[in-house]
Amino acid sequence: MTQGDSMWKAPGDVHLGGGRRWTVARVPQAALSAADFELDEVALPIACDGEILVRVLWLSIDPAARAWLQGVTYRGALIVGDVMPGFAIGQVVASDAPALPAGAYVSGDLGWRDFAAVRADDVQRIDPRRPLQDYLNVLGINGLAAYFGLFEVGRAAPGETVLVSAAAGATGCLAGQLARQHGCRVVGICGTEEKAAWLSGDLGFDAVINYRAGDLRAALKATCLDGVDVYFDNVGGSTLQAALGRMNVGGRIACCGLISQYDGAAPEAGPRGIPGLLITRQLTMRGYIVPQFADRFSVVLDELAAMLQAGTLIVREEVLDGLERAPEGLLGVLAGANTGKCLIRVAEPQPS
Amino acid sequence: MTQGDSMWKAPGDVHLGGGRRWTVARVPQAALSAADFELDEVALPIACDGEILVRVLWLSIDPAARAWLQGVTYRGALIVGDVMPGFAIGQVVASDAPALPAGAYVSGDLGWRDFAAVRADDVQRIDPRRPLQDYLNVLGINGLAAYFGLFEVGRAAPGETVLVSAAAGATGCLAGQLARQHGCRVVGICGTEEKAAWLSGDLGFDAVINYRAGDLRAALKATCLDGVDVYFDNVGGSTLQAALGRMNVGGRIACCGLISQYDGAAPEAGPRGIPGLLITRQLTMRGYIVPQFADRFSVVLDELAAMLQAGTLIVREEVLDGLERAPEGLLGVLAGANTGKCLIRVAEPQPS
Repeated sequence: MTQGDSMWKAPGDVHLGGGRRWTVARVPQAALSAADFELDEVALPIACDGEILVRVLWLSIDPAARAWLQGVTYRGALIVGDVMPGFAIGQVVASDAPALPAGAYVSGDLGWRDFAAVRADDVQRIDPRRPLQDYLNVLGINGLAAYFGLFEVGRAAPGETVLVSAAAGATGCLAGQLARQHGCRVVGICGTEEKAAWLSGDLGFDAVINYRAGDLRAALKATCLDGVDVYFDNVGGSTLQAALGRMNVGGRIACCGLISQYDGAAPEAGPRGIPGLLITRQLTMRGYIVPQFADRFSVVLDELAAMLQAGTLIVREEVLDGLERAPEGLLGVLAGANTGKCLIRVAEPQPS
Repeated sequence: MTQGDSMWKAPGDVHLGGGRRWTVARVPQAALSAADFELDEVALPIACDGEILVRVLWLSIDPAARAWLQGVTYRGALIVGDVMPGFAIGQVVASDAPALPAGAYVSGDLGWRDFAAVRADDVQRIDPRRPLQDYLNVLGINGLAAYFGLFEVGRAAPGETVLVSAAAGATGCLAGQLARQHGCRVVGICGTEEKAAWLSGDLGFDAVINYRAGDLRAALKATCLDGVDVYFDNVGGSTLQAALGRMNVGGRIACCGLISQYDGAAPEAGPRGIPGLLITRQLTMRGYIVPQFADRFSVVLDELAAMLQAGTLIVREEVLDGLERAPEGLLGVLAGANTGKCLIRVAEPQPS
């Protein structure tokens, strides 16, 4: 896709010079460190044969990026020399695709770099009349993950208790807000008092547990007296183990992520009680990734956009300025440093 | 329900003497042994206030009985002194319930004993024109577990690969046969060459793996080249772990039992890859028990009865004679000694 060693010449004879990119310097065997990435500058890729050259404006920092370094997931394992992938918003600077002229805004997996040449089919055109970064958050991977996890996978019904882990994270805080609007009782798990205060105060969660403040099992027992009907799991590991113990008969576990297990060579053994508890309590555990629901994206995105418009979804961002800070962003997200969505502001849009 | 210390007098002045029963002598902390049960004889229970007195004819030996001794499941934990529960076929010998007169045949959880007094509502009347023990097998817990696990939980579709563990067991051999008739490719896992020959020969499984003959992972890889779409799990533990590794994207795991984990104090840690693999491959794991589908029993039982009638379901039984052999039966089932259904013949029906 990229031709880093050739001088780039855009259709229309626009010369842009080079661009930076983050590649994998080594595959981490334990906790990730900044030294696992390498920043270099290369000649610009060429957009040809239906491709577009895109300037990256916003980069989404998602914990799953660490999992891509662990091995095969829903994408191939990353290896040394690969450009770090990542969802991003960009602006077309040169185009060999008539439907996406220079100046257009797009979202897609553009990666950790200043410029990407991609096939026009691999990106979605977005409407720049709303904040561009919304397309990486509520109107992107996080909003879709929250929506499909809660309603399609978790089948949350009004009156039920929904437990959300990593509740102050980008997806968790949306899942909790959607559940609340749906008439569910929402209990969040997070890792700081500040996050807990935000979730119960600003976001109106019915109860919040700071798992670092004491015994999670005991806290869940005290907080979910009537058990848990839907567990929206972003965490895996011991949090999943504790949640399993509180599930009601017929409960559903929506497996969205497992941030507790990403930052090592390989995940730990699974929770005790699999499959025993699943049987005795007739539980369903279902893993999902957002693209599997692609045929319903447009309907759901319209619904989420309407909620944003109406102000019924509160959005919080933590923005780091500059592509050079992308590894710092990922390390922070893995450590739970962020409240809400972590974004890298790579460049400003150019007037078209 | 029982009044073991009173002399029993049936409505109609029928005197029957006493009856034997197996109780829990101690709760096993490791592998089950015969000494964990105690056989004694007590005066007959009294059937009154809508109850019936039932003579047990056939007793079903199910691995789940061992799980009931581990702790709370979908029923309360068994404790010392409890009569061992168990599905059984019986004949009414005295009745305070007009709908179930003496001579009628019933199925229900009558327990490991010669006579039980139970509420008429707690048993189902059965038709004695077919072999009574069918109601403990194809037309009972095993047929229903196979049917709902395969079609409702596993959503098996024609052309898909269905993997069944404990495939020569009472439920597994039915699940495999149903899958085959549905147009699935069926791969069985069992523990002896004799069972393997029966599954591929008489039952027409497409492939069978004897897990004791070598590395299960390698055998699954060689046998399921196109992966597994539905895993019908009767085993849990390392078999579930190996099967997880072969699941196709979008696959379903029907959690029916976990015989590998019953015969100890508590189950091991769960399989590695929960929830990670569930996410990356978009898998669903769902535990179930047969009673949750009770509203559809009659339709499904009619369908299963028609297959029995047509000879399209092959049934195999291992019958032990005498109530005194019930613990031997359970120990055998836990060790994988049985092929097909293990039954205890407790008494002969009486002419009515």
